[in-house]
Amino acid sequence: MADRSSTSRGRPTGRLEAFSDGVFAIAITVLVLGLSVPEGWQADPLAAVAGEWPMYLAYIVSFATIGAVWLAHTAITDNLQSGSLHFARLNLLLLMLVSFLTFPTLLVGEAIANETAERVAATVFGVNLLCIAVVTSLLWRHARTEGLVHADLSDEEVQVLTRRLTPSLAGYALFILVAAILPIVAVAGYLVIAIVLLLPRRHPRDGPAPSDR
Amino acid sequence: MADRSSTSRGRPTGRLEAFSDGVFAIAITVLVLGLSVPEGWQADPLAAVAGEWPMYLAYIVSFATIGAVWLAHTAITDNLQSGSLHFARLNLLLLMLVSFLTFPTLLVGEAIANETAERVAATVFGVNLLCIAVVTSLLWRHARTEGLVHADLSDEEVQVLTRRLTPSLAGYALFILVAAILPIVAVAGYLVIAIVLLLPRRHPRDGPAPSDR
Amino acid sequence: MADRSSTSRGRPTGRLEAFSDGVFAIAITVLVLGLSVPEGWQADPLAAVAGEWPMYLAYIVSFATIGAVWLAHTAITDNLQSGSLHFARLNLLLLMLVSFLTFPTLLVGEAIANETAERVAATVFGVNLLCIAVVTSLLWRHARTEGLVHADLSDEEVQVLTRRLTPSLAGYALFILVAAILPIVAVAGYLVIAIVLLLPRRHPRDGPAPSDR
Amino acid sequence: MADRSSTSRGRPTGRLEAFSDGVFAIAITVLVLGLSVPEGWQADPLAAVAGEWPMYLAYIVSFATIGAVWLAHTAITDNLQSGSLHFARLNLLLLMLVSFLTFPTLLVGEAIANETAERVAATVFGVNLLCIAVVTSLLWRHARTEGLVHADLSDEEVQVLTRRLTPSLAGYALFILVAAILPIVAVAGYLVIAIVLLLPRRHPRDGPAPSDR
Repeated sequence: MADRSSTSRGRPTGRLEAFSDGVFAIAITVLVLGLSVPEGWQADPLAAVAGEWPMYLAYIVSFATIGAVWLAHTAITDNLQSGSLHFARLNLLLLMLVSFLTFPTLLVGEAIANETAERVAATVFGVNLLCIAVVTSLLWRHARTEGLVHADLSDEEVQVLTRRLTPSLAGYALFILVAAILPIVAVAGYLVIAIVLLLPRRHPRDGPAPSDR
Repeated sequence: MADRSSTSRGRPTGRLEAFSDGVFAIAITVLVLGLSVPEGWQADPLAAVAGEWPMYLAYIVSFATIGAVWLAHTAITDNLQSGSLHFARLNLLLLMLVSFLTFPTLLVGEAIANETAERVAATVFGVNLLCIAVVTSLLWRHARTEGLVHADLSDEEVQVLTRRLTPSLAGYALFILVAAILPIVAVAGYLVIAIVLLLPRRHPRDGPAPSDR
Repeated sequence: MADRSSTSRGRPTGRLEAFSDGVFAIAITVLVLGLSVPEGWQADPLAAVAGEWPMYLAYIVSFATIGAVWLAHTAITDNLQSGSLHFARLNLLLLMLVSFLTFPTLLVGEAIANETAERVAATVFGVNLLCIAVVTSLLWRHARTEGLVHADLSDEEVQVLTRRLTPSLAGYALFILVAAILPIVAVAGYLVIAIVLLLPRRHPRDGPAPSDR
Repeated sequence: MADRSSTSRGRPTGRLEAFSDGVFAIAITVLVLGLSVPEGWQADPLAAVAGEWPMYLAYIVSFATIGAVWLAHTAITDNLQSGSLHFARLNLLLLMLVSFLTFPTLLVGEAIANETAERVAATVFGVNLLCIAVVTSLLWRHARTEGLVHADLSDEEVQVLTRRLTPSLAGYALFILVAAILPIVAVAGYLVIAIVLLLPRRHPRDGPAPSDR
């Protein structure tokens, strides 16, 4: 019965995590399927492969962002004591935005050498990234306000997680504006945000571990 | 030995769930690989990317539907006390129909701006969605009639799940007819059905939790 | 320490199963990415979509075969008490052959309406299916001869599993020959074999369950 | 609480393993999506399908390499007693390099019959493989130096794992040089390295099992 209580009675957080991990893993891996070289690249292969660098840049941005969002998602769900249908639906929206990322990544790759196309692609890319940050933040807010978070999590721990999950809203908004003028600079900016999200930071768990846990 | 009894002796429901979750997660994620922009989109990128809106609509329909079916599948398998080879086969049929959804989603996206093609695509899409609803319903019926459901599930709980899983057969049938005349309206109708399936509803578990579970 | 003993000390059968389930789930799901309609299908959409029926047939064959092999794989690994590096390597070969199946499925779909191409595609398809059957059988033989199988599995149970896993070698060999003359008939034959593998059969577990398991 | 301690308090090694297994499984399976036959292959199907042999060779190299790296990854994480955020980040880099492998595999397949293109493709392929070997090695080194490894692992066991994980740096470096002259020979060389990594070797666990584990 223990097994049912952990999956069914407390709502399916176990399977929600497994399903989400699956979608994150697939989304991060199929990004590579958007990489391609233009037809006829064999004529001047070195220049053609090297000339696709904005495509590789977009690939790294998307990979790093999905990785950072997965780490944030892990931090959220690890601290849940229960789920809810509403949480599951919000989570589904996040997964849709994350898996959609393949499309603007592809656009950036295809827009190479066309200024207008690059601007549109970099803007769509930024809006998608901004939406991901907003929904990730909403997911954590919902978990906190609905009492889904473990009771033994200290206020300080909650605050650290909140700060960690606070989306770089201003950052994305800024670079979306930049995208209209200097699209590749904007994409580089998205990478900086992803790296900042991945950078080491002081973590409440780095303190001495509570003895009874 | 406990491990074997849960996987092998009671038939592999654990691995069936893991395998199914995997297929659902992959099917929902690879949908994005069907998204593309027509060649030469770089010439007028904003109009080209925006003009693909029926493709995005079909993407959202498929994503929402697979999400709803996954939630329904979770509700079924969480309440199983055992599986059966016949259940596994029926489940395989459901997974095939779910993963096939990528194809009509692609058709809708490619049919844009061609009335006849849109009608065919929207009809194929609707038939696929209808088949998914029928097989999901059959799966739950099979579980109930074959005694695979947990004995401690009350009649009321069974009925709520049955109502929840009762496919919107009439809805899909209606919109398949609409697809022959107004294909995009039909696709929007499929989205309405998916959203209804995902909407909050009163759930037997929302009552006071039985003390001994 | 219990956790390590089940993963590391007894060799990683748990992760081998999870990894294999992942590959099976992905291989069965990405099959759909091989489905496409010829360019210009929008001109006569009904005929174009319907005319691709050998492609759908090949899709169903591959889906049913991977499903059947997954069920067989589950039956094997559920009865293992330990793994071995050699088992893991043989398993990797099986996974390669299973995930390769997407390629001949694509070939059959692309060969439509060209007799010679259909013959080559159906032959390559059959050889791939035959290799899968052979390696699945070798995997079970290896598990039996190396003593990886649970000691409490009765001789009768071993025999039922052996019969179940005995590949339809003769069947595949026959239809590979047929493929050289009537390629579509051969593909239909592969489907018959897959369905036979999936059909209900008397199972030792259907008897009264041993009380102490 | 046991569940939280294994996922959250000791850092998410459980989910890190599940996520990594997912990415490895997907990366190894989507390789097949890079396989294709040139347009018009139906005219001379046997020659066209057979003529793509360097593409199949690259596919087998990538499949075998990812399989070998997955086995190495399993060996590392099975021996961890805890994770760390830095380990998770290094792991993410490894996963990016592994899933990127689809791209050079595709390049090798597309470069067929063009000497210069083959050289570029085989060099990019080799550099990607070299990076994977380096990062895998760094991951194990980090685990050892940061004390993440189980305390009861003997020095001999650590050394065997270290030798097993020591990348064939010299081998890859050699064949990257060869790639500039004889690209297909280099690709064959990468296969030799992958097979050596997969070959049976004496394993500390093959000795008599310690009684109390």
